[in-house]
Amino acid sequence: MLRVAILSVGDELVTGQTVDTNSAWLSQQLSAIGAAVVSHATVGDDQAMIESAIRRSAEDADAIVISGGIGPTEDDLTRQAVAAVLGTELELNEGWLAKLKEFWARRGAVMPEMNRIQAMIPRGATIIENTAGTAAGVRATLAGRVDLFSTPGVPKEMKVMFQRDVLPHLAARSAGAALVVRNLHTFGMGESAVAERLGTLMDRKRNPTVGTTVSGGIVSVRVYSKFESRSRALDELAATESLVRGALGNLVFGADDDVLQAVVAKLLAERKASVTTAESCTGGLVSKMLTDVPGSSAYFKQGWVVYANQAKYERLGVNLEMLNVYGAVSEPVATAMARNARRLAKADFSLAVSGIAGPDGGSATKPVGTVCIALAKAAAGAPRRFDDSEVLVRTFNFPGDREMIRDRSAKMALTLLRYELLGERAPF
Amino acid sequence: MLRVAILSVGDELVTGQTVDTNSAWLSQQLSAIGAAVVSHATVGDDQAMIESAIRRSAEDADAIVISGGIGPTEDDLTRQAVAAVLGTELELNEGWLAKLKEFWARRGAVMPEMNRIQAMIPRGATIIENTAGTAAGVRATLAGRVDLFSTPGVPKEMKVMFQRDVLPHLAARSAGAALVVRNLHTFGMGESAVAERLGTLMDRKRNPTVGTTVSGGIVSVRVYSKFESRSRALDELAATESLVRGALGNLVFGADDDVLQAVVAKLLAERKASVTTAESCTGGLVSKMLTDVPGSSAYFKQGWVVYANQAKYERLGVNLEMLNVYGAVSEPVATAMARNARRLAKADFSLAVSGIAGPDGGSATKPVGTVCIALAKAAAGAPRRFDDSEVLVRTFNFPGDREMIRDRSAKMALTLLRYELLGERAPF
Repeated sequence: MLRVAILSVGDELVTGQTVDTNSAWLSQQLSAIGAAVVSHATVGDDQAMIESAIRRSAEDADAIVISGGIGPTEDDLTRQAVAAVLGTELELNEGWLAKLKEFWARRGAVMPEMNRIQAMIPRGATIIENTAGTAAGVRATLAGRVDLFSTPGVPKEMKVMFQRDVLPHLAARSAGAALVVRNLHTFGMGESAVAERLGTLMDRKRNPTVGTTVSGGIVSVRVYSKFESRSRALDELAATESLVRGALGNLVFGADDDVLQAVVAKLLAERKASVTTAESCTGGLVSKMLTDVPGSSAYFKQGWVVYANQAKYERLGVNLEMLNVYGAVSEPVATAMARNARRLAKADFSLAVSGIAGPDGGSATKPVGTVCIALAKAAAGAPRRFDDSEVLVRTFNFPGDREMIRDRSAKMALTLLRYELLGERAPF
Repeated sequence: MLRVAILSVGDELVTGQTVDTNSAWLSQQLSAIGAAVVSHATVGDDQAMIESAIRRSAEDADAIVISGGIGPTEDDLTRQAVAAVLGTELELNEGWLAKLKEFWARRGAVMPEMNRIQAMIPRGATIIENTAGTAAGVRATLAGRVDLFSTPGVPKEMKVMFQRDVLPHLAARSAGAALVVRNLHTFGMGESAVAERLGTLMDRKRNPTVGTTVSGGIVSVRVYSKFESRSRALDELAATESLVRGALGNLVFGADDDVLQAVVAKLLAERKASVTTAESCTGGLVSKMLTDVPGSSAYFKQGWVVYANQAKYERLGVNLEMLNVYGAVSEPVATAMARNARRLAKADFSLAVSGIAGPDGGSATKPVGTVCIALAKAAAGAPRRFDDSEVLVRTFNFPGDREMIRDRSAKMALTLLRYELLGERAPF
């Protein structure tokens, strides 16, 4: 099994100002190709410490993936440390220098002299191109045995470079090993409710193993299939995946890299349907998520953020008396918001959210976390009539702080729309 | 200065299923007492790897704090590894065994036999009591020089034990040395442009040291002040901070935990001013950020997401001919969006964003990343007239993918408003 060590560089990491999330992400990627991650190490911006960490990591590993320390400033010392460990010097890479100059030229500027260092790589090493930033990565071989990869610490840049240039190289080296992983994502039920539905599938002694993790309210079911051969591992993974899907049904919205908004976007596109939004407490988060997806103009034309009562009345014609009698956070108001937004936007569907995100504004009957979500669609028998809507409305009580409540509200709005598009009653 | 190494143990960490947040927390705690964290290391549940990680960490450190690997199951091997490195054996601690039995008895149960291992500690070591769980920690001295602490991996248990029994011990040892840290955040200029302005302040040999990190387009300037006494460290920090602020001026939007939207919210509140939004490519992200802040209803009442041209016309009265002649991504259109939204919402300020977030939709003259941002405010001499606006408009070219372009666009819109509220011309 290919053994890989991960090394992170940065003062902000050893002083605890930044939590290292790169190492966990890299580990997941490496596990997925059947490599064994033997260690993570983190050191500050200190050349001697970086060199010693590379040497130590090399003792137990066939490959080392380094992130961080290749910015343009004086405290970026990874490239110097890599050159020292390789026993060579830095030399200018004319190709990357030209790209750097181009990068600034496109912005109508001249490359600052200090960025010249980002075109220096150890003699004999290869550039790993960076399409999202100026720090090129480096690939080299240490002692004829250990693959050494140096990438930026900025997660976005590192991830693209790793998946494009590092992972395929390591996957080729680790061929034969067989761990395959699938993540199935759900939203709307808690981790223990999902685990209950999975029952004995979660037995620790089972292979493939089935486990759950939660992130941002999304409960993901991880299936790890470890077998001697890749084909066997894949077969067993497929069999277990189908048992998991059988237990959870449409609660599973996607697998692996799927994100909720893209899944909803795909369903809307397939049905050539459009959606509009009328948001109060989420303040634009639902429309932001709907437009996260490339090509979202196909199904999303406009939305309203009606934060104040006056705006709900002026923009969406929500009756002021209704606002006074029921309060803005109420099913009648959410219903009116969804219905009127649908009519004005002439959209097939409309999502409205009104709630108390806190920390203030809660009461005994409507505590912080109370959120009404309404989904308007064409009334039965009137598919092209935008002034005749049928509305589904639900009241939720989301836990957590302001950010969490807004996030869960937006995800739940998308989830209600997803169930609607699947033609199934949402189990919430 | 007391040098501390942090070691985390657990398969869930090296496989990336769990992000290690303990190390960052421990580092913050240790920095606060003036200790220098020299490295973080993480290994899986493998005794040989744990032993080797302890030995390596000991080379550069005066103390090692280990978390994880002291549960009751077969894959918990830290206590065995610690004993091996100390060159001794595990022996039963009768005192802790009695507490464990009591722990179960209080719950009306009998201690499972497998938990007996949790009362075993290396001969000559001291127990660190755990009041929140069954895994006792261990304190020992390695080679008469290195303090060794082993604590549980569960953050809640580890934190209590660390602060009660580990930190005071290390604080006493590190007495005299003091490290204080400040982070100053900027948005709008690249890391190298910020570094250029800082000039010789970034000299590596300086104390306090000044370094830069980037996250989400926000370039943060870190000041580290290390001196014998805390009061000297604080004085020197203040002196260097004021030099940094002098070099960067209002580019610095905040310090430490400050976030851009909260800083803008505070300025709006101080001036009793309100803002509205008219968003195309950001799809609601600007209004979402403005409403991230508790109490945002004081300055934000409503906003529009006008994604399609038709919506720009129908909702905000943007001239269809103007849309055809200049295109939606143009300064005249952004200007009209901002001006008309301000008039309709009767807000003091209005932010409009229209751009090409990609991946499609770019052209030779307007590549992906082209974003027009307009800020409308009352025309000079007409502070209460919402139909008479003065508009500042800028065109930017943001690098990166769709998510990055949208994020930078929203942050730039808030930044333009921040400069306006400070009464200063934005340097972009």
